[in-house]
Amino acid sequence: MYKLIKNSGAARRGEFTTPHGTVQTPAFMNVATCGAIKGGLSALDLKDLKCQVQLCNTYHLHLRPGDENVKKLGGLHQFTRWDGPILTDSGGFQVFSLAKLRNITEEGVTFASHIDGHKIFMGPEESMRIQSHLASTIAMAFDECVENPAEYDYARSSCQRTVRWLYRCKAEMDRLNLQPDTINPRQMLWGINQGSTFEDLRIENMKQIRELDLDGYAIGGLAVGETAEEMYRIIEAVEPEMPKDKPRYLMGVGTPANILESVKRGVDIFDCVMPSRNARHGHAFTWDGCRNMMNAKYTLDEKPLDEHCDCPVCRNFTRAYIHHLFKSGEMLAMRLCVMHNIYFYNSLLEQIRSSLDQNCFEEFYSNNILKLGARI
Amino acid sequence: MYKLIKNSGAARRGEFTTPHGTVQTPAFMNVATCGAIKGGLSALDLKDLKCQVQLCNTYHLHLRPGDENVKKLGGLHQFTRWDGPILTDSGGFQVFSLAKLRNITEEGVTFASHIDGHKIFMGPEESMRIQSHLASTIAMAFDECVENPAEYDYARSSCQRTVRWLYRCKAEMDRLNLQPDTINPRQMLWGINQGSTFEDLRIENMKQIRELDLDGYAIGGLAVGETAEEMYRIIEAVEPEMPKDKPRYLMGVGTPANILESVKRGVDIFDCVMPSRNARHGHAFTWDGCRNMMNAKYTLDEKPLDEHCDCPVCRNFTRAYIHHLFKSGEMLAMRLCVMHNIYFYNSLLEQIRSSLDQNCFEEFYSNNILKLGARI
Repeated sequence: MYKLIKNSGAARRGEFTTPHGTVQTPAFMNVATCGAIKGGLSALDLKDLKCQVQLCNTYHLHLRPGDENVKKLGGLHQFTRWDGPILTDSGGFQVFSLAKLRNITEEGVTFASHIDGHKIFMGPEESMRIQSHLASTIAMAFDECVENPAEYDYARSSCQRTVRWLYRCKAEMDRLNLQPDTINPRQMLWGINQGSTFEDLRIENMKQIRELDLDGYAIGGLAVGETAEEMYRIIEAVEPEMPKDKPRYLMGVGTPANILESVKRGVDIFDCVMPSRNARHGHAFTWDGCRNMMNAKYTLDEKPLDEHCDCPVCRNFTRAYIHHLFKSGEMLAMRLCVMHNIYFYNSLLEQIRSSLDQNCFEEFYSNNILKLGARI
Repeated sequence: MYKLIKNSGAARRGEFTTPHGTVQTPAFMNVATCGAIKGGLSALDLKDLKCQVQLCNTYHLHLRPGDENVKKLGGLHQFTRWDGPILTDSGGFQVFSLAKLRNITEEGVTFASHIDGHKIFMGPEESMRIQSHLASTIAMAFDECVENPAEYDYARSSCQRTVRWLYRCKAEMDRLNLQPDTINPRQMLWGINQGSTFEDLRIENMKQIRELDLDGYAIGGLAVGETAEEMYRIIEAVEPEMPKDKPRYLMGVGTPANILESVKRGVDIFDCVMPSRNARHGHAFTWDGCRNMMNAKYTLDEKPLDEHCDCPVCRNFTRAYIHHLFKSGEMLAMRLCVMHNIYFYNSLLEQIRSSLDQNCFEEFYSNNILKLGARI
């Protein structure tokens, strides 16, 4: 399903094929937590913004509207009207970060809903069943995401349990894909590498999970408290152990600079709420760095958000107008800024792909790595 | 500029031409208070929603971003990117409804900004200057809008002052349109009929203001506390005194049924925040009546908001999805519902025009007047 087209050092240009379309990698997945990208974007907007993949959150959709309801409504593609690939996370990350009063056993996790506090149990089988109801293109394995810094012993035993859970995920997904009423019988399962910031645990874990020959592999448990340098060190440690013929997904990362650094280290796929969340607070990513649109200096600025951008927002609206909309508390401010940022992230990945195609990734990296992190 | 195409009783099918395009009447004007329709709509959306005219609020734009700034940015068309006709109100209504500590004299009104409390003076000349800076297609006269019920004596003296103000508006607008740096030197001025719920005052006032031979005439001071029946009685009283060759605008009205009743009584143009405001609270207007999308009965409803509607929302999304978005507090819920309601209002007026064209307005009225007011 994954085809490696070319390398530049560890960086990889590839594509992978799914029943819902082919994804050119490196790629960014656009986060639609509850079935919609925050900031008022619908599936109708996504094609204009160069989106390839939509990511939806299992935990949120399980609580509301309920995965059984999404199944009755034909699955996430039918529900959200996005016809491209959809990846669902496993719910694990949210269970460990949002839910309260959680209790972990070998079976799974009992936790209280962050909406109304009612008790829910989720284990590998439950996560697979929910994701099967949601009928995403790619389901993620149910794992424990340990916050950094972690105790070595806890990280090791958690990792080992996550591997045992992965076998249960695989068995359950195989079973679900054979059920006659399954919406997407070709739903893929991707595994998740854990091991906190310990290189030996990461490598051991990767060796174990690659045995299952899954459709793709993610690096999880990063960007959860450690420094960027630690994150890059772990990617460098684990990357040589990742299958060459499978897509590699770095979960929840990150800034434009984080993405460029991680592509350089062999990662293919990313997701992050940053483009939409930062936009809602007035922060616009540009090729010259990040702008705070609340700044009074934009009051009479007739230039677009980004002079190098040809998104629908930059083709039509001025910084002055967007600044005014933010100051006035108009919802349109957030929508326009989210649209631009989503387009920016997808364009960044497109430019990275193009530089790999043209054998100038290193040059692209050098020209952009500092600017992308600037505040202007 | 206004051409009466045909009548059906008092109802009028017409069109009026402006430097920014021709408006087919009866027409609805879409309210973009601060330069954007609330709910995350931009000028890029408006053409898809059958919008003919955008209305912007002088009071709000004077306070933020400031009309001098809008002028520096090329006027409202350049600022918002809407290239069709724009009407600005005079600021009078907001001065009397939103501002605090107001003090009215023959010169004008001193009031405190609702944003930061700073003192502002606005009289006829100031209103014209602000609207000239905004460079709308149509400027409205500066008037006092008296709340209903009003004392007869106060209503009479207020009316008389508003007429004196109208002469000052006309003189100032004529002067401004001749200035070399005026963005729109063909800016129109429309007069506003006042007189509260007193027929004799309304008629006397209309006779006085029509003397100025302005480009259009509005009925103001309705839908501000009186019953719908009183409003219709006043329209019926004043309508025979309104010029036949000028567009007639009923300010701030109203529900779909109010609009249909008022077209029947000879009104050409409407504006109201209801389609966008109600949408943001989950109320969708349909040809069968108004739906509350928060209602749990929509959880698994795969039909569109309105089965008779072909708006971008109804062509793509289900009630179940929109219900879910509202329950989840997603901004997209509001955007989709506002888009639908704006399209619904513009389509209602389009259907009214079409019934007039086809000589079946009375039939259209009878078939729809009850349904439009229903809650379903």
